[in-house]
Amino acid sequence: MHEQEIDTPALVLDLDAFEANLDAMAAALAPTGTKLRAHAKTHKSPVVAKQQIARGAVGQCVQKVAEAEILAWGGIHDVLVTNEVVGARKLARLVALAGIAEVGLCVDDERQIVAIEEAAAAGGRRMKVLVEIDVGMGRAGVASGPPAVALAERIAASKHLIFGGLQAYHGRAQHIRSPEERAAAIGGAIDASRRTVEQLRQRGLACPIVGGAGTGTFRHEAASGVYTEIQAGSYAFMDADYARNEDAPPFKQALFVLSTVMSTATSGVAVLDAGHKAVSIDSGMPLVWDRPGLAYVGASDEHGKLEVRDGSRPELGEKLRLTPGHCDPTVDRYDWYVGVRKGRVECLWPVAARGAMA
Amino acid sequence: MHEQEIDTPALVLDLDAFEANLDAMAAALAPTGTKLRAHAKTHKSPVVAKQQIARGAVGQCVQKVAEAEILAWGGIHDVLVTNEVVGARKLARLVALAGIAEVGLCVDDERQIVAIEEAAAAGGRRMKVLVEIDVGMGRAGVASGPPAVALAERIAASKHLIFGGLQAYHGRAQHIRSPEERAAAIGGAIDASRRTVEQLRQRGLACPIVGGAGTGTFRHEAASGVYTEIQAGSYAFMDADYARNEDAPPFKQALFVLSTVMSTATSGVAVLDAGHKAVSIDSGMPLVWDRPGLAYVGASDEHGKLEVRDGSRPELGEKLRLTPGHCDPTVDRYDWYVGVRKGRVECLWPVAARGAMA
Repeated sequence: MHEQEIDTPALVLDLDAFEANLDAMAAALAPTGTKLRAHAKTHKSPVVAKQQIARGAVGQCVQKVAEAEILAWGGIHDVLVTNEVVGARKLARLVALAGIAEVGLCVDDERQIVAIEEAAAAGGRRMKVLVEIDVGMGRAGVASGPPAVALAERIAASKHLIFGGLQAYHGRAQHIRSPEERAAAIGGAIDASRRTVEQLRQRGLACPIVGGAGTGTFRHEAASGVYTEIQAGSYAFMDADYARNEDAPPFKQALFVLSTVMSTATSGVAVLDAGHKAVSIDSGMPLVWDRPGLAYVGASDEHGKLEVRDGSRPELGEKLRLTPGHCDPTVDRYDWYVGVRKGRVECLWPVAARGAMA
Repeated sequence: MHEQEIDTPALVLDLDAFEANLDAMAAALAPTGTKLRAHAKTHKSPVVAKQQIARGAVGQCVQKVAEAEILAWGGIHDVLVTNEVVGARKLARLVALAGIAEVGLCVDDERQIVAIEEAAAAGGRRMKVLVEIDVGMGRAGVASGPPAVALAERIAASKHLIFGGLQAYHGRAQHIRSPEERAAAIGGAIDASRRTVEQLRQRGLACPIVGGAGTGTFRHEAASGVYTEIQAGSYAFMDADYARNEDAPPFKQALFVLSTVMSTATSGVAVLDAGHKAVSIDSGMPLVWDRPGLAYVGASDEHGKLEVRDGSRPELGEKLRLTPGHCDPTVDRYDWYVGVRKGRVECLWPVAARGAMA
């Protein structure tokens, strides 16, 4: 089956580009000694996770308990929830999951340590707990230095908990356009992490993991000598927003939304069957792949409006590839990847953790 | 089970408010003689559709063939695709579906009439086809007046097609804040529709349906004497964006995303477990229901950042209702509605057509 025969909208993965991205990340990290723990919030798929692990990734990151469940039952042996998990029911699920996989989670609050200790004791298991430090997001995470050390000591002193290290992700920095400002922001995260690791050492606490970094900044964290695990996710697929960074990440665009031109009745306009239910617009409009005369200028629920420059008019029924503005939430709208190689459909992979929010 | 026991994020429907909205729309349309053909792109659920039909709706609208399939197989007897359907495979599916339900679709291009005639002939069925006219969107739709009449005549002359009427929806007008400007925009749509209906009549063509209108403007179309069917969808649930209209639609907020406070580590901030994968932000950030001191100021994939005014700090683990900025794409992110009445969970309804894009 040819790509042009796929019914639309569809989530198309260019397998050659995807595999080249996995190889490129493995090659980039090999000389640094840092490990990849790829973020599954991007791909939501044990199939993708296994290909990352086959190239050396130590495991996977997730944001949600439901994602952890789907990966672990899908055969992934080491899953870290890079997030706070609040609520007795969710904690009980995570403790149960630790029976089939290595599982960790993050805290930024002493009350959460108490709650996890209770859940772990009730489940009869020891849980790995990392302290999330705020390295510039102003969102979740405790302050680096003494407040983080205090939480780590509290974890280490809990009978059913193991102090796993520091979670130190600077999300906002990923999309800073200027390489200098991006490096400066990550420089701050590296300093905060290094200082906290040193203070932990002085208190006799080893810090097995310092985790963080994304596709926009991983080269800095990997070279820092402090971070041990890189949590990039988007690198496998890429998107229009990451491509807008100056000195953009060295990966190929592998993920597309295939769409069909469904109206050319209005002059200067073509309408696609892919609106914002089909391609996320939280990080800007998608781009039309390989068609410089076409600009995606407006998304409604199920319509994408293209502005057509002279001589660029697409045909009614023509299928066009869109490069999503943001890959993670775009993937989360689909049930299947359609894997394509050199224009031919090769596989269907389920987006197994689509909608796994809770 | 109490609402506070629902694990989050979850899509919560306040059943009293929802039923009041269905009743209010039925009461508003009764004296006008126009019929409701509610838009299922909002609710994606045969369960909701049946409750609308029980109150007098003549059927349902959808945007996609996959949605039409799910409604028709779910027992809805009359489904109109208010959209162009391009591609032989999709048309064959729609013709097949006409074997179990009354099915219609729209065109804005002569080539599509040819394609639908071929599909209908191959399937041995007659298909109802409406002409979509552009009444101010500048998107899909042929010009009103003679170009629309020409398409209608072409449909009527096709052996396997039935001319069903005009599709005349002005989407942009729904969200014009000023009632005067909103009325003026719809005045233009009404004039264009009236003129086209008259020209059709002069050519001997009856126009059984003139369909359009949404939650923001339906009172105008319903009072026009031209429109016969109102295609509102959001009225059943409401959202923050419609509530921002001056002289806002007379419906209650019935749809919420329930979320949990998962971090209060940063001063002046609380973090929710519902980011833009859980609540759509294409029409602005969600609002925090019934908590005036809390503002949802930032959405990342799985985090919602609240700005906390003095004295309004929520508790870690507290569950808060969010009013979505835009109900349609928010519903499309969930597999289930959790129906709640007076704080108690009463039902789970599947979002049966979630992700039904093709």
